[in-house]
Amino acid sequence: MPLSDVVIVDTTLREGEQFIHADFSSESKLEIARALSDFGVRYLEVTSPAASRRSREDAQAIASAGLPGTVAAHVRCHPDDAAIALDTGVGALHMVMATSPILRAASHGKAISEVVRMAAEVAEFVRKRAPDVSIRFSSEDAFRCPLSDLMNVYLPLAELKLFDRFGIADTTGAATPDRVADVVGLLHRLTAMPIEFHGHNDIGCAVANAHAAVTNGATHINTSVLGLGERNGITPLEGMIAVMYAADRAGTMARFRLDALPGLCRRVAELAEVAVPFNQVLVGETAFSHKAGIHTKAVYNDPRAYEALDPADFGLTREIAIGHRLTGWNAVR
Amino acid sequence: MPLSDVVIVDTTLREGEQFIHADFSSESKLEIARALSDFGVRYLEVTSPAASRRSREDAQAIASAGLPGTVAAHVRCHPDDAAIALDTGVGALHMVMATSPILRAASHGKAISEVVRMAAEVAEFVRKRAPDVSIRFSSEDAFRCPLSDLMNVYLPLAELKLFDRFGIADTTGAATPDRVADVVGLLHRLTAMPIEFHGHNDIGCAVANAHAAVTNGATHINTSVLGLGERNGITPLEGMIAVMYAADRAGTMARFRLDALPGLCRRVAELAEVAVPFNQVLVGETAFSHKAGIHTKAVYNDPRAYEALDPADFGLTREIAIGHRLTGWNAVR
Ligand SMILES: O=C(O)CCC(=O)C(=O)O
Ligand SMILES: O=C(O)CCC(=O)C(=O)O
Ligand SMILES: [Cu+2]
Ligand SMILES: [Cu+2]
Repeated sequence: MPLSDVVIVDTTLREGEQFIHADFSSESKLEIARALSDFGVRYLEVTSPAASRRSREDAQAIASAGLPGTVAAHVRCHPDDAAIALDTGVGALHMVMATSPILRAASHGKAISEVVRMAAEVAEFVRKRAPDVSIRFSSEDAFRCPLSDLMNVYLPLAELKLFDRFGIADTTGAATPDRVADVVGLLHRLTAMPIEFHGHNDIGCAVANAHAAVTNGATHINTSVLGLGERNGITPLEGMIAVMYAADRAGTMARFRLDALPGLCRRVAELAEVAVPFNQVLVGETAFSHKAGIHTKAVYNDPRAYEALDPADFGLTREIAIGHRLTGWNAVR
Repeated sequence: MPLSDVVIVDTTLREGEQFIHADFSSESKLEIARALSDFGVRYLEVTSPAASRRSREDAQAIASAGLPGTVAAHVRCHPDDAAIALDTGVGALHMVMATSPILRAASHGKAISEVVRMAAEVAEFVRKRAPDVSIRFSSEDAFRCPLSDLMNVYLPLAELKLFDRFGIADTTGAATPDRVADVVGLLHRLTAMPIEFHGHNDIGCAVANAHAAVTNGATHINTSVLGLGERNGITPLEGMIAVMYAADRAGTMARFRLDALPGLCRRVAELAEVAVPFNQVLVGETAFSHKAGIHTKAVYNDPRAYEALDPADFGLTREIAIGHRLTGWNAVR
């Protein structure tokens, strides 16, 4: 799949809600959902409606807000959770279950065969009760799971023909792109299923890992605005957009209202009570600043000399430092 | 080379000085150099002593401060600049020149053959005048340069046996790891030279690109504290450390005083008049926070369940949210 055709599954309203400072009101969630839709995102994930009464009501409100595209509920592999989620009217269920030895031990305590049994049971239940709702199953902590265990989860589930897509998560954010390329590539070849990648950013590779996933068979990428999520978060929406834009400017501009991106990020930052980092990809305040004289002189001649991204496409302007001793360097050449 | 053996060439005092908000005093530069050395960095790059009188004096002060390891001066490919740099007593010269068609046109206007001629001329001059000073030549904007042009620069220069190392720069920060792996791998195979990678972060791949460079033959990586540099910066020191630590905790702890890293970052942020981003790898305030109940419960059982990096190794503590509606989820299970 060409990079710029990848489906962005934004999870600001699920993973982003798990950001330590986030405490989105119901109104804020609807506002974020609308802003993401206005920007061009066509797939939103929300917190499990089984998590709390508010989560249920919020999922219902977002699912019935008339947004273009799909609203999915994140759910654990329990029929009860799935039933509650289905009642909210969402168009997709995103099932998740831990697969790595360490996380299975620390969370659900089940064997790999049990993971398969539980996922199959929920999928059968959903297929019967709501044939049109799409079903994704994802492995939490897949990158600390032996490949054999991982394939022992996905291969039997693929046989069942109950799932629309498989997810795979780098839950502790320590994978590197070569590893993601290997594992996603293998999963894609062995199952021939659409694949969704979810990657945390603990060692700073979440954007590149998403890129590696797509170039090795993934069709869907999880993002959140500013990467908001557990710990320091996941692949930021802005980062994914920058990668897509760098690969295919026209294709990306056709799908997204790029000039709405900075405002969307500012607004979500405000709601999450954080400042937009000065160095955030695309939307940080220094993203289009130039300082050394050798840079500023060249940028006056041709901005593309030191810019891979055109700030105007994002409704932004560049900042050029003048009068600093480094700026003057080139003048004395 | 094992990932954790890579040489970190920190350029906070050169690239970081090109950060739009940075205006480091001479005292601050010495303080940063000492703090980087205390942390364990053994290779520092400073701004060209030809840039201004202050740059010359600062380079001299840092070169003679008795720091362990090497202090290198960044220089353009001009014998005059090299002569001024040598007079400061630095142990290495880092020559740089633009190679891509677009940047050659917008900056020096020279042909590829001229780039080779000028680099060779300066290297000969330095070798004669200061035989013990090490010499690195780097291509600015190498990733927008046709591979044939690039090899037409490096291959004849390698023949001369005047250089200790070649650098290669992703100046506009739009390369992805697969591309870096290809180009660095080729350069390494064709020249058999030590390779240094310098990568900007415009599309968010700078950490992963540095990782791809090392796993494909690079021996040296340029970093700066918080990634400070032109635009939104380069591979952050913290990011590179996180990648090394994830691959080899013991080896990385043996080389660096990891618990000094958060303080180093906070101090440089203060001097550069920016806030440490909330989501910065390792040192952002949320890097070790846990919120959803399914996470917090597992982390109480075993922190490694949701942590690839141990905060205690960095002198940090984790933060666990309690009492939020998402935190309560697991309790009602
Ligand atoms: O549903 C998923 O794929 C990911 C769940 C999650 O947030 C994680 O594993 O980090
Ligand atoms: O000296 C180098 O390798 C890099 C110069 C630089 O800052 C860049 O090209 O971005
Ligand atoms: Cu996650
Ligand atoms: Cu640079």
